[in-house]
Amino acid sequence: MRHLLSTRDLDRATAVGILDVAEDMADVAHREIKKLPTLRGKTVINLFFEDSTRTRTSFELAAKRLSADLITFSAKGSSVSKGESLKDTAQTLAAMGADAVVIRHSASGAAQTLARSGWIDAAVLNAGDGTHEHPTQALLDAFTMRRRLHGSASRGKDLDGLRVTIVGDILHSRVARSNVWLLQALGATVNLIAPATLLPVDTSGWPATIGFDLDTAIDDDPDVIMMLRIQSERMNAAFFPNAREYSRQWGLDDERLARLRPDTMVMHPGPMNRGLEISANAADSARSTVLEQVANGVSIRMAVLYLLLSGSVKP
Amino acid sequence: MRHLLSTRDLDRATAVGILDVAEDMADVAHREIKKLPTLRGKTVINLFFEDSTRTRTSFELAAKRLSADLITFSAKGSSVSKGESLKDTAQTLAAMGADAVVIRHSASGAAQTLARSGWIDAAVLNAGDGTHEHPTQALLDAFTMRRRLHGSASRGKDLDGLRVTIVGDILHSRVARSNVWLLQALGATVNLIAPATLLPVDTSGWPATIGFDLDTAIDDDPDVIMMLRIQSERMNAAFFPNAREYSRQWGLDDERLARLRPDTMVMHPGPMNRGLEISANAADSARSTVLEQVANGVSIRMAVLYLLLSGSVKP
Amino acid sequence: MRHLLSTRDLDRATAVGILDVAEDMADVAHREIKKLPTLRGKTVINLFFEDSTRTRTSFELAAKRLSADLITFSAKGSSVSKGESLKDTAQTLAAMGADAVVIRHSASGAAQTLARSGWIDAAVLNAGDGTHEHPTQALLDAFTMRRRLHGSASRGKDLDGLRVTIVGDILHSRVARSNVWLLQALGATVNLIAPATLLPVDTSGWPATIGFDLDTAIDDDPDVIMMLRIQSERMNAAFFPNAREYSRQWGLDDERLARLRPDTMVMHPGPMNRGLEISANAADSARSTVLEQVANGVSIRMAVLYLLLSGSVKP
Repeated sequence: MRHLLSTRDLDRATAVGILDVAEDMADVAHREIKKLPTLRGKTVINLFFEDSTRTRTSFELAAKRLSADLITFSAKGSSVSKGESLKDTAQTLAAMGADAVVIRHSASGAAQTLARSGWIDAAVLNAGDGTHEHPTQALLDAFTMRRRLHGSASRGKDLDGLRVTIVGDILHSRVARSNVWLLQALGATVNLIAPATLLPVDTSGWPATIGFDLDTAIDDDPDVIMMLRIQSERMNAAFFPNAREYSRQWGLDDERLARLRPDTMVMHPGPMNRGLEISANAADSARSTVLEQVANGVSIRMAVLYLLLSGSVKP
Repeated sequence: MRHLLSTRDLDRATAVGILDVAEDMADVAHREIKKLPTLRGKTVINLFFEDSTRTRTSFELAAKRLSADLITFSAKGSSVSKGESLKDTAQTLAAMGADAVVIRHSASGAAQTLARSGWIDAAVLNAGDGTHEHPTQALLDAFTMRRRLHGSASRGKDLDGLRVTIVGDILHSRVARSNVWLLQALGATVNLIAPATLLPVDTSGWPATIGFDLDTAIDDDPDVIMMLRIQSERMNAAFFPNAREYSRQWGLDDERLARLRPDTMVMHPGPMNRGLEISANAADSARSTVLEQVANGVSIRMAVLYLLLSGSVKP
Repeated sequence: MRHLLSTRDLDRATAVGILDVAEDMADVAHREIKKLPTLRGKTVINLFFEDSTRTRTSFELAAKRLSADLITFSAKGSSVSKGESLKDTAQTLAAMGADAVVIRHSASGAAQTLARSGWIDAAVLNAGDGTHEHPTQALLDAFTMRRRLHGSASRGKDLDGLRVTIVGDILHSRVARSNVWLLQALGATVNLIAPATLLPVDTSGWPATIGFDLDTAIDDDPDVIMMLRIQSERMNAAFFPNAREYSRQWGLDDERLARLRPDTMVMHPGPMNRGLEISANAADSARSTVLEQVANGVSIRMAVLYLLLSGSVKP
């Protein structure tokens, strides 16, 4: 791999390969082994135009556990806020010797622009671009599903036949988009559930079924139900009446939780709005994979940094 | 030790044990030895809900001198500001593999809640919670007193019989509270001096005498006088008339400084308001321990991190 | 060297010595070698009272490539914003064990005050003080010129006879001041071009010629033309009419670019206002040294940290 820009680019073999490397990293990510010297001397720069302490911290930990140096180049209060272009910022970081640039940007396509422009030699990792993609989130979600399904026998496996329901603000969610493409590549089927105002106008090219009713989707007995975070700024806007109404119709409350199989996975990318899109019981139940997702996020980011920077291994 | 939440929990033997380990750390903290490999591979996360560059930096240096990785998880602009609960934030950090969480929070009891909830396995270090406690500050203060008293013969010693006067905003000071408990455990006696409006309503359970007049307290010839920082937001409020009046009545000015013995210690947790609660001459005199306190802060934090994370030693 | 405060202090031998050490560092800075263990255990503190992500990041990378620990002590939200004096902040950092303090401050002379006060033992590096000096910027500029002129035969060389034109807001530019002194020490001649409102009132002591007309300066066929950044806050103020007028009279546009020799160096300290003081074609042309300047900045900062902290080598 040269860059990681989207999951839409990933075929099954490459995706499984990344998950397998993440298995190798899990002992370090989960603190049974402390640290690997693999990327000593490599420089990773976090270039975050939007705040995201969680994702930034996860990449920082991943880099440190591989002994790379990580520098955070906050776009706030930097040359960027003085009007410098993305091109000049990126070329500056490359000139300083960045081996990889982890970019989060409010503009859909920013990571692709950076990677495909030829502006820089460094590897580009998309850590979320507008409403477009967030590939490491989808990879850690798939990794979490595979581990729940296959445990220590996960290596080499895909998610063939797994039935995944994603619920919430599909319109604005890069997490949903990245999951749709990756889950398809891995053989799962995806059902999207959302209020009509929170669905993209045109989903004709999406490899997923679409619905509006969460109860029907639960009656269909999914293997995984993934609740998306509702941004408070969507509330009281044109998108839907109010939080209480959203929660009643599209929230995973205790009653709906009880109707799921005991082994149905309840996923959420975090941070959760407890009581809004997910109840506290759902978040804390044995079905919930929320903390596994966080832990696996470090494994996945270690795997991706390793694959992009070690040069010696191809998935 | 499993956590460090307050000094009220510490008995004499444990407190002396921590100070003794800090003696072992002092050569590294004070830069005569550069670095110890002791905590290589351990991850310490600074979780600061209130700004405190000094305390944060001191912990960061302590962690680095023990070769641990330190990550700052700023609560500003993070999930926390998006309404995530302390529980979810803490569990996220633990899932990412934090071995210790250093928490500063505006709510009294936040560190205790975190440690006693069973939410996380990581060690919890209280770096200041509301007006409750700031235990590493009290430990570094006691360490500074012990070193001034006993020099290189400090190991194993307590502060038996030492007479300490603490002056200022006792009502809001976690530094004062932590010192009161720790100094009692170490055998010192404490006299608290404050305007009536800056004393807690009920100090009946406190192992300290209370007074309102700084000049009387100085006439009593204390061994240590500790001036607390006055927060400017208390000024012009109901607490006392104004800065000049505060300074005249409760500030350590040059005239009062001259009445202290040459070996009376003048302490301040910093940052100082020179000319308000302490005069420049008092801050810079040979009696002042202000910079020793800063230097000893790194030793104490190294000791505490070591005791919480090495697993192999009990104080 | 004990501190690096200004280029005005540097004689030719010292300046060439620093550039020569930077040559030794270039293989690491430019990532052909990954890392040097030279400053392991040393602590460098970035004390930035003004934002500058670029300069801060460049120092951070330089410190890490020499294996030093670097801590950023942001003056925002710190004791400093609570009114602590520079003296107390600096002494606090020194007490924590800083071996070097890299300071950026809005007050001209802040670095000198810090170094000459005797407040701290740590080495002081001026990373920009008001409108006074920015010595590492001038050193990296000189290093870039020398490398363009002499390539791999640069060691020991100065810039004798080189003709440098600096264009823009001379009045407020610490970059211009540091370049003027260093270029003189290295044997180059300097021509300053600016609107009359952006020149200091008294330049009588400056070792440079002064002019107001960029076209005349280009007709004089300089070897180097260095375009300074225009701060947007100068626009629409008393300094000059507006951006379009500035650009027309003092911008390096395509027409002026075409009149330069093919080997005339086009320099800019960054971040650039493309279309204002420099055209996109000028910024991206083969004449442009902008990215070399960024890359060389890491080499220069490594060299300076090494010279100040290793103790064993004098330039």
